[in-house]
Parts: sequence; C-alpha cells; structure tokens
Amino acid sequence: MSHPMHMVNSFDPANPGLLDPADRALLGRRQRVLGAPYRLFYNTPVHIVRGDGVLLYDSAGLDYLDAYNNVPVVGHSNARVHELVAHQLGVLNTHTRYLTDAVVDYAERLLALFPDHLEQVVFACTGSEAVDLALRVARYTTGRQGILATAHAYHGTTQAAAEVSPSLGPNNAIPDHVVLVDAPDTVREDPDEAATAFARRVAAGIDELRRRGYEPAGMIVDSILSSDGLQTGPPGLLEPAARVVQESGALWIADEVQSGFGRTGTWWGFERHGLRPDLVVLGKPMGNGIPISALVGRADLIQAFGRDMRYFNTFGGNPVSIAAATGVLDELMGRRLLDNARELGAQAADRLREITAHDPRVVDVRQAGLFLAVELVTDPDTLVPDAARASSIVNHMRERRVLISASGTHDNVLKIRPPLAFTADHLPRLLEAVDESIRATA
Amino acid sequence: MSHPMHMVNSFDPANPGLLDPADRALLGRRQRVLGAPYRLFYNTPVHIVRGDGVLLYDSAGLDYLDAYNNVPVVGHSNARVHELVAHQLGVLNTHTRYLTDAVVDYAERLLALFPDHLEQVVFACTGSEAVDLALRVARYTTGRQGILATAHAYHGTTQAAAEVSPSLGPNNAIPDHVVLVDAPDTVREDPDEAATAFARRVAAGIDELRRRGYEPAGMIVDSILSSDGLQTGPPGLLEPAARVVQESGALWIADEVQSGFGRTGTWWGFERHGLRPDLVVLGKPMGNGIPISALVGRADLIQAFGRDMRYFNTFGGNPVSIAAATGVLDELMGRRLLDNARELGAQAADRLREITAHDPRVVDVRQAGLFLAVELVTDPDTLVPDAARASSIVNHMRERRVLISASGTHDNVLKIRPPLAFTADHLPRLLEAVDESIRATA
Repeated sequence: MSHPMHMVNSFDPANPGLLDPADRALLGRRQRVLGAPYRLFYNTPVHIVRGDGVLLYDSAGLDYLDAYNNVPVVGHSNARVHELVAHQLGVLNTHTRYLTDAVVDYAERLLALFPDHLEQVVFACTGSEAVDLALRVARYTTGRQGILATAHAYHGTTQAAAEVSPSLGPNNAIPDHVVLVDAPDTVREDPDEAATAFARRVAAGIDELRRRGYEPAGMIVDSILSSDGLQTGPPGLLEPAARVVQESGALWIADEVQSGFGRTGTWWGFERHGLRPDLVVLGKPMGNGIPISALVGRADLIQAFGRDMRYFNTFGGNPVSIAAATGVLDELMGRRLLDNARELGAQAADRLREITAHDPRVVDVRQAGLFLAVELVTDPDTLVPDAARASSIVNHMRERRVLISASGTHDNVLKIRPPLAFTADHLPRLLEAVDESIRATA
Repeated sequence: MSHPMHMVNSFDPANPGLLDPADRALLGRRQRVLGAPYRLFYNTPVHIVRGDGVLLYDSAGLDYLDAYNNVPVVGHSNARVHELVAHQLGVLNTHTRYLTDAVVDYAERLLALFPDHLEQVVFACTGSEAVDLALRVARYTTGRQGILATAHAYHGTTQAAAEVSPSLGPNNAIPDHVVLVDAPDTVREDPDEAATAFARRVAAGIDELRRRGYEPAGMIVDSILSSDGLQTGPPGLLEPAARVVQESGALWIADEVQSGFGRTGTWWGFERHGLRPDLVVLGKPMGNGIPISALVGRADLIQAFGRDMRYFNTFGGNPVSIAAATGVLDELMGRRLLDNARELGAQAADRLREITAHDPRVVDVRQAGLFLAVELVTDPDTLVPDAARASSIVNHMRERRVLISASGTHDNVLKIRPPLAFTADHLPRLLEAVDESIRATA
C-alpha cells in the first residue's frame, strides 16, 4: 500500500507471467523506449489490436468485453464519430484565432445541456488541462490561493492538477495551500448523515486553510467521487458541502471528467446532487478518444479571466476534435444512451446485489447510471478493506476476458464502468464473470 | 503595450471593421458562448472554412496563402495523415494501459531522430502538457525548485507553464522561483559576442535564483527563441548558456514546439547550437493538428520520475494521434521537407533582404529553415521598435490574402512561418505581398 510506486491493478514487469513470446518482445521494446511511466493493467497485460462497440480484440483474435473504459463512451470504432472526423480531416483543421463555424455551433449545443447560469466554455485537449485552467480561473477571479479536494481524489497530471490529486501517492507532494477532506463513505458512515458530515469536514477544511494563511479559492470534487471509491451516496450528498464552500466566497468546481456526458444517467453528475457549480470540467468521453476537453463556467468568471489573461490552446476547439465531440452528442442523444445508462445500470446493480448476497465480505454495491462499484472487506464487522481480493477478482475476470478494474482509498472497490453503448445483451457475460470470480475468490 | 489584455495582431471586437453581416452574426454568437479568452487575429478576422496544402479558403471561396501556421506542417488536409487517421479510427483507439503496437513503433522511430543520450519518450496531448511535465521531471529529479527562462518566452498555458511564459503579459504572475534572462538580440548586441553575453546573463540568473533561496532545477529555452523575436543568431548561440546551466547541476530543457520537426532545416532546433539537452519538448506540428505532444529525455531522468510518481495521460500515445504523427514523419521524410525548409528558407531570406534593402527602417532579416523574421524600427540609429508598422504590414498582407503575424519583445518583428509543404511556386505571392506592404507602410 505505501510502496511509492504502487498503482492498483498494475502489471509487474518482473513477473511477465503468461505473456507469450511475441508480447514479451513487444513489452521489452516498450520498456526501452517508454520506460517506467508506462504502467500496464493486469497481472498478464492485454495486447489489444482492434475495438468494436463494447468489444476489444487481442492479437490472437480473442474478444474481451469492455466493462471498464469510459472514453469510448459511444463504443469503440464508433461509425458516426469515424464518419464526422474523417470528413472533417479532409476539409479543415485549424485553430480558433480564425472565425470557424463548428466550434461555435458545438459550444451552443453543449451549453444548452447546462443550467442557465453556466454560459461560457473554453476548450482544451485533456481533463488535466481543463482542471488546471479551472484552478487558474478560481484563483485569479477570487484573488485567493487555497484549494480543497477530497482525500483520495484524482484530477490530473499537470503540476497544479497533481497538487489536488492525493491518489497519486506519497511522492506526489500536496502543498500547504491545498487541504484534503475525507470523502463521504456510506459503508462506514450513516448514509442519512453523510451529506452533513461531509459538509462539516469541508467547513473544518476551510478553517484549516485559514489557519495556514490561505483564503479558500475553490473546492474541486469529482461529482461521482470515483477515486474515493465511487461514492454514489444518496442524491444531494454533495449539496451541503457545496453550500459551505460557496458561502465562504470560494467556487465549487465540479469535475465531470468521470461523471459527465451521461455516465450517471443524467448529463452531468452534479445534477444528482442539486448543487450549482461555478465551474465544470469536462474530459475523457467528450470526443470518444479524440483529445478534447472543456471548462464550462459562469460568464463573469470566464470573462474576467479572459479579459486580463491571455489564454490560448492551439489544439483546443479545433474542427476535428469538435467533429468527434459532435458525433458523441449525436450518438448519446440519437441512441438514448442516458436512458440506457439509467435503466441498464439499475438492472446491473440489482443483479450484482443478488449475485453477491451470499457473500458477507461483499459489503456494498453502489451504482449511478452505468458506473458500478462493488466493495470488498476482509470481515463484515471490522470492515477492513480487502484490496488483495479486489485485485484477484479483477485478474480473474481478465482471464475470462471481461475487463474491469479496482479503485478506492484502499483499492478494495471493483470499478465497473463500461462504454454507454453497453446493452442488455452484454450484461449476462459481465454478470457471469463477476459471479464466477466472486465465488472463486470466496 | 502595457495594456493588460494586449495581444499582438489581435482583433478588437469594438471595431468589427469590414466584417460582413454573416461574419458579424457568427462573431456575436462566438462572443456569447466562448467569450473573452477567444481572441481573433487581424483587424478584420478571417472566416476560414477549408484548407488545402498551403492555402486556406474563406466563406466567400477566396484563397489565402498560409505563411503563418506551423501546426499543419505537411499541409492542410494532408492526404497521408487523413488516410492513416481515418483508417485507425475504424480499427482501435485506446490508451497505453494495454499493450498496443503503434505507440512503440512510433516511439522507436522518433527516438532514432535524436542523439543517443535521449532514449525515452512520454506522450501527452499538447505542448503545454509536455512543458509542464518537463518542469515536473526537472524539479523531481534534481530535488531543486528554481527555473530559468528567457524574458519574453512563451511555453504554454498550464499554471506551471504560464509561470515560465512572461510574454503572457503583466497579469500573469512570474513567481519567485522563476528568474528571467534577456534573450540574445543580434540587432542590439554584437552577434559575435551574443552567445557569451547570453551565457553571462544566464550565470547571473542562477546567482539571482540562489540569492532568493532556490537552487536551479533547469532552464527552458525555445531553441529558435520565437517569442523573443526569432533570435536565429549564429549557430552555437545557445551552447555556452547550456553549458553554464548544466555545470550548475540544472537541466537544459529544449522547447522544440516551435523549432522541432524540421522547421529550422534540421530535425531539432537545438542541433543548430551543438548543445546536449537533458529534456526536449515536442508539440504543435507533431500530428499536423491532431493533438499529440511528447517529452523526450535522458532515460535516467524519465525512469526516476516514472518509478516514483504515477503519471498517466489518458489520450497520450493513443493510436489515432500516433497515426497522425506517423503520417507527419512519412511526409517529412518522403517529400524531403527538411531539405525544402533549408533551401527554400535561404532563398526566401535572400529575396526578403533584397526587397527590404531600400528601407533603412527594416534593420534585420533573420532566418533558420522556413522560419523567417523581419525586424522593424522607427529609426535605424536609435533602433526603437516599430510595433505599429509591424501590425500595419500584417494587416495589409491579410488584405492581400497572405497570412503572417508579428512577434518579439516589442511586437515589431514580422513572423513568417509557413507549413513546410510550402514550395518555390508559393514564394512569389508571399514576396510580392511583403514588398507591396513594406512600400505601402514606408
């Protein structure tokens, strides 16, 4: 756990396991040129060569059910995204210092999906860039430096984003101007009290910032708290905390990189909580894998920052990335994938509860839309997290060619997050693999 | 000049000038949803709808000669990039936690273009991300905090990259741990002394960092010093400074976002200077507009950072971006575009010198490959920079439908930087537009 290079569900190159000779050779070349930052998933990594819908195919032609990837939200090799991107690549791909139509059309369409008080958008390329920009805007417009985040959050890889990403581990220094607050934990807290308890911890965090000499500029929270173990909680879970933050004059920054674009059955995860974010960060699924991200926010904040600071993202809002993002909205809407996320997600959660009912060491099945979590402990009374079993299940499922991962403060939470193109036809294969792996590790 | 929202060659929405009603309507919509951060080029912005090779087309079907954009390095709507990207989009687009072939193949091919001591690469999506990562690696591996940069540098838009980007203007705070050093200026310094004078300023900058309590972790320098006015200097210009930096135990970070991928007639701009960078940042032209960037560096540095820190860029090294980058290398090599940059660039510089010889207020024509600068002053004796005339020429040329911009510490340097797909056939149109505009503003 406290090993500095620890990553959940990470391949150990010293144990290449069952990798075939060709994959071992590729791995060797990869380690030479890409090196230590490039960690692979699973005890035996998967060599992927093709994707189609919710299936991935390895170099031997075997199919894997993708119950993990949120980036290809409308499916691997999606035809609509393919068509729009390929077309646009033959027409124009340039930056926003020229007038171009598509970026304006898309911005209007995107903003129509947000509450009225969120009126402007700035495009970037990755969630990290959008988080970094959100922090810059929060600090500049409030004139304050303090930031709050949850205790096992992940928000990105730039220096500023890493400072609010304690889940990156012990060598990732959290500076003095960042205060961490334990996320809600409805297994270990009374769910009915979790919202007010979290708000009290946030208020104490603000006091702590002030004690250190910093006024709070903002709090950034993943609206589905995925790195903190997918804390779906009851609806409204985050609202009292947001109120405390905003009453202190700080901004609530909703990180929707995980929960946005229909993942939780609504367009944005913050909607479940009835809160009113000042800034919203979008990323991963936005372009189905073509890099695009965005910061959506109150016009007064974006205008003030933009007037005084020069900000320009060369690739941000380029017509090809916008084409991909347009294809994603077309598909999410045309195929009613938000309804699918709600209905199929609820169905999957019910079945997972049935499957795991016999096992007292499965203490919780949490779900919001097509984001599901199964929490494992060594003992139902002490609730000690069982990371070893989670890892075992993830790898067991991988051997059955069903891809999931694990998450949470103690890596003991199964993370099931398939593309939203997942259908009822795919559910049995996922559930059988969970069932079998739960039993095999009982 | 000191206006906080100043940007060279920036459209003023309060003066919509000659924009036709349709463009005014688009502009109005754009201002509503994208807002103040989105500045347009030129007194009268250009509404671009199509690109082909080195030509851009506006909404009226008129063609513009692109003598400015370095991102579409192998030409707008390049067929090879189009083919590879469109194919890959139908096959697979995923992240590097699975074994995939293309990212390894490309990494090997890319690294073969670097000196032997630069052995590993980390992929990201934008130059800003790669700069941010370079700064993180430099600080982590040296255990030091101080950074040096040039006095009018631009390195990106993340918080950490903006801290080393003084050209972003007076509201962009430069923190105490960053010391700025005046770039060489061969118009105002003896060119033969410029390299040693710069090295002396860098040494003084290191002293200043130490006076403030910071040991130097690294110096980041754009190898062609484009924001500092395109200081091409004599070859070797940056080498003595790099030596001073490295002898202090700090790293030399070569920012090749502007100068890389053949722009200056060699693969990398640092090659002109015979220096040995520790880290190299790649960006803009790398994928011809599909977001991709990279940090190339010494294996010991990347291994140490990667072992101890978790770094993962979801879209970094994805197969679609890699396909675009592969197409760029194919085209640069197959069409001998580095030779073209050297030969055509030298020819263009010669002709620009002839064209401007009659005008004493044109004090310098600088060139390295297909990156050209023309420096304007109000008086050849006092050498007072003439930003107004530079702006006038840029806009005059835009009316002739030839796109360039201006740059430099005082915005008085014409910046001519066409796609490397530029050929001798395109040169007359560029030169005539410069000639005519120089005369019209004499």
